[in-house]
Amino acid sequence: MPRYKLTIEYDGTSFSGWQIQPDARTAEEEIEKAMSQILQAPIDIIGQGRTDAGVHAKRQVAHVDLPDTINSEKFLFGVNGLVGEGIHIHQIEKVNSEFHARFDAISREYEYVLLKTPSPLKHRTTWWPGRNVDFKKMNECVQLLKGEFDFSGFSKFNEENYTTLCTILNAELVEEEEEVIFRIQANRFLRNMVRRLVGTLVEVGKGKLSREDFKEKLENPEANVTTKTAPAKGLVLSNVFY
Amino acid sequence: MPRYKLTIEYDGTSFSGWQIQPDARTAEEEIEKAMSQILQAPIDIIGQGRTDAGVHAKRQVAHVDLPDTINSEKFLFGVNGLVGEGIHIHQIEKVNSEFHARFDAISREYEYVLLKTPSPLKHRTTWWPGRNVDFKKMNECVQLLKGEFDFSGFSKFNEENYTTLCTILNAELVEEEEEVIFRIQANRFLRNMVRRLVGTLVEVGKGKLSREDFKEKLENPEANVTTKTAPAKGLVLSNVFY
Repeated sequence: MPRYKLTIEYDGTSFSGWQIQPDARTAEEEIEKAMSQILQAPIDIIGQGRTDAGVHAKRQVAHVDLPDTINSEKFLFGVNGLVGEGIHIHQIEKVNSEFHARFDAISREYEYVLLKTPSPLKHRTTWWPGRNVDFKKMNECVQLLKGEFDFSGFSKFNEENYTTLCTILNAELVEEEEEVIFRIQANRFLRNMVRRLVGTLVEVGKGKLSREDFKEKLENPEANVTTKTAPAKGLVLSNVFY
Repeated sequence: MPRYKLTIEYDGTSFSGWQIQPDARTAEEEIEKAMSQILQAPIDIIGQGRTDAGVHAKRQVAHVDLPDTINSEKFLFGVNGLVGEGIHIHQIEKVNSEFHARFDAISREYEYVLLKTPSPLKHRTTWWPGRNVDFKKMNECVQLLKGEFDFSGFSKFNEENYTTLCTILNAELVEEEEEVIFRIQANRFLRNMVRRLVGTLVEVGKGKLSREDFKEKLENPEANVTTKTAPAKGLVLSNVFY
């Protein structure tokens, strides 16, 4: 059976994350249901990795094996018609049958959108961290992030982790007119890691922590520095690189 | 009592429009409740005009009379803390006691955001009208819109209307990378008018109606041309001019 790569966007507000779990609507399940309904056979898709409840995806990647007889463009059109507005598959692309959405992914990129002033029209995909946040101070910490660190001080404990070392390939804080975007690319991410980085960076921006506190926690996960976790809604998986 | 002008943004998804009505959460009510709670006295605000259920506002305007003793900036901070994420008052500004948010408004501007491809992350504030929409054809109709017309052919019957003549001061269709924005400024708008214009323009873009059909309906409200109504979610009240 030919293998296809899927590029998927979804609104995290509508789903309890990516991965199928009991009693919750997830993006993976929504797609599998639609595909199974069209093909009248159970279909399994393999995602690049999970996103947590409430986290969005602009470009989540998955792969799926489909029967030879499928016209992939027509199939895509049918699936998109069934899944509803909170999710859309932008692309379906035939790939080598060796391709694996998870194991072949070299790095992932996330974006976190902070607002300078509250905006009700954007409140589902952004976070306003409050008044008097010094983005320059935050940026000084972001500059420290490139390279390999043990991020266990910035993540939720997860017994599935075989390592807590992550290599940050790129990290930047981009100031726009109404928003400040934190963008980070790494070979892997631990659970809650980006949200915890952002929450803690905001503490620095508010003057509650210093650049030195942040640096200490980055170099020593056991350091006695209280981290904070930013809400899921401002976070989006923006790309997966192969 | 000093009079204040309020500039308000709200997410129409969270509210049944602007104006207070029984058994529904409205933007006006949400603000009045918060103000009354802080001042421990009933407060009435007067809005520029209603927006329908599901329609958003970037810059809705209202006025309110507040006690002399109020520090308006602190008061605003308190009100914004109480109203929740779907609504935010951006500005409170002392105005002449003769100022009236509704009667002094000279014109209003609406924007309707159409997507070129579906985007789950924007689906609450935009509308994807489907594939194969010719925006150039739509634009040819938009060019016809400047001037005074009887828009009763493009509105819901409303017995409160004392006139169905509206003067369009500006109408444009702006194509951006992912979106096409219809922007229209007029001295007044009838109920459902912008949504009906957009829905009908899309019919032209899809080749189901011609520029001539659109022109005919614009010049003669009784013309036998079937109009369509675009969903509320793509529409936002973008400005009020005084």
